[in-house]
Amino acid sequence: MRNIKIIGYGGYLPKNTVEFNGETRYWCTEEETQLDMAAQACLRALEQANIGIEEIDCIVSASAVPVQPIPCTAALIHEKIALGTDIPAFDINSTCTSFVTALDTMSYLIHGGKYNRVLIVSSELASMGLNENQKESYELFSDGACAFIIEKSDNPIQGVIASMQKTWSEGAHMTEIRGGLTGLNASFYSEETREDYLFSMDGKRILSISAKKLPPMFDEFTSKYNVRLDEVDLVVPHQASRALALIMKKLGIREEQYINLVKDYGNQVSVSIPYMLYHALQTGRAKENNTVLLCGTAAGLTSNMLLLRL
Amino acid sequence: MRNIKIIGYGGYLPKNTVEFNGETRYWCTEEETQLDMAAQACLRALEQANIGIEEIDCIVSASAVPVQPIPCTAALIHEKIALGTDIPAFDINSTCTSFVTALDTMSYLIHGGKYNRVLIVSSELASMGLNENQKESYELFSDGACAFIIEKSDNPIQGVIASMQKTWSEGAHMTEIRGGLTGLNASFYSEETREDYLFSMDGKRILSISAKKLPPMFDEFTSKYNVRLDEVDLVVPHQASRALALIMKKLGIREEQYINLVKDYGNQVSVSIPYMLYHALQTGRAKENNTVLLCGTAAGLTSNMLLLRL
Repeated sequence: MRNIKIIGYGGYLPKNTVEFNGETRYWCTEEETQLDMAAQACLRALEQANIGIEEIDCIVSASAVPVQPIPCTAALIHEKIALGTDIPAFDINSTCTSFVTALDTMSYLIHGGKYNRVLIVSSELASMGLNENQKESYELFSDGACAFIIEKSDNPIQGVIASMQKTWSEGAHMTEIRGGLTGLNASFYSEETREDYLFSMDGKRILSISAKKLPPMFDEFTSKYNVRLDEVDLVVPHQASRALALIMKKLGIREEQYINLVKDYGNQVSVSIPYMLYHALQTGRAKENNTVLLCGTAAGLTSNMLLLRL
Repeated sequence: MRNIKIIGYGGYLPKNTVEFNGETRYWCTEEETQLDMAAQACLRALEQANIGIEEIDCIVSASAVPVQPIPCTAALIHEKIALGTDIPAFDINSTCTSFVTALDTMSYLIHGGKYNRVLIVSSELASMGLNENQKESYELFSDGACAFIIEKSDNPIQGVIASMQKTWSEGAHMTEIRGGLTGLNASFYSEETREDYLFSMDGKRILSISAKKLPPMFDEFTSKYNVRLDEVDLVVPHQASRALALIMKKLGIREEQYINLVKDYGNQVSVSIPYMLYHALQTGRAKENNTVLLCGTAAGLTSNMLLLRL
């Protein structure tokens, strides 16, 4: 148990929306950037916590796709919200579950006394990488950002109760953007190679590997940490796709127990989990003392499960 | 104090070298990739530790530049060395000091009981991003990879004694590769924009800001943690540039106390610090029970200092 509490949160969605078959997706116009969204989410979280940036001990960017190859995204966010301070900043990346990995990781650093108060922010400009020839993913993803401020808690039952992460790299190429970095340099970009620089997803194979790997992992997680599903107030899953209901059913999670807003927000990559938690806190669906299970699969293929008492 | 020990390490340099004014740089030929180098370094570390990959609890990629926008680099390294296992894998990135941030961060997770044994690997294909019109950086950087395996130690004086990280984002654009991701998409690549996709460094301004920021940080680090410089057996600095000697002098570190092999290896980005530590261990310049100070500045601008008893 690492005793931490959430003292502020902020979400940001671009103004521009598109509709596919009655479902809403948020896509930035050219005026908005990944950094703008990240900064807005951070400022809202600071405002809600009613603190200034100088009261933050560490800034962690927990996004899948970075803004530049160099420097790390956290340094660029630092420039937007913490210029003139010396707050340490770095990135933690496990693709779509980056926020969960970051929350888990930083809970150990807070517990160990390294930092007292940490700002974690996820931001994604998914729409920039979508391929109009892959209808399934083209119509699924959304842009956005979400930030949480966590600090050490004196309440012995509040914080991260249990966490587990696994990576199965047989799925490494089932979800990817191949081009733009050292694997396939930008200099090879052309009309012919264009699709190599766009998002590519083999939804069927991901669903098949997830359906095989997740139930035993969930059993291991619940039995190792004595987690009783009926004691979990809310499950906050990554909004991976319309197949979410199928996976939740396989794990034995009842429909009323988890958040499914794929229809309203789409898959926001690393932003989905924090944004859904933010949404639940905003709407009162999650409250202090509630036990929430953050979980999801990420490109990699990685899966994270983290039980948090608010 | 987080009690950890190094149980294996492996370095990898590409075969191909180039010379500038009698100084050696390692530049991959087209046959070698960032992932190949990372995998080689990991396999050598595992061999030296005399363990199999299944005995590793977590794989952390600690590089500045990723291989693909999606998934994270650790998942792609996992595919090369841990396919078929479920070892969790994720990236930690503070650009050039990523290895130090990762070592520090993971020491808390080992100390907190999350993982017993962690593989941290840095790998960089710097040569791919160099700009022949910026002679200073073009003739400075090298490719390579280095991996360390760390585990919980029962020796109460062994491990991470102290650490400090600071980020000053007024330096965010003094060292950068702007293009290839969401900040400047690969689709804008052309002969005219080519340099935006290459490494750019304002060496003079970095030196000026470093000379101003590092001495007070070093004073804060040594006084906060009661570090006596004469009790440090070896300083392992990032091999930032030929100005290393100047910065070390400003910090009061004597020439015989620190490693300066810029002439022989150049600046290997995130690989420099682990590779120099590996080199010191290989050559006997660092031994068990020695106290070593890992330190450096990174694009961001970030600085890390970490005192480790081997």
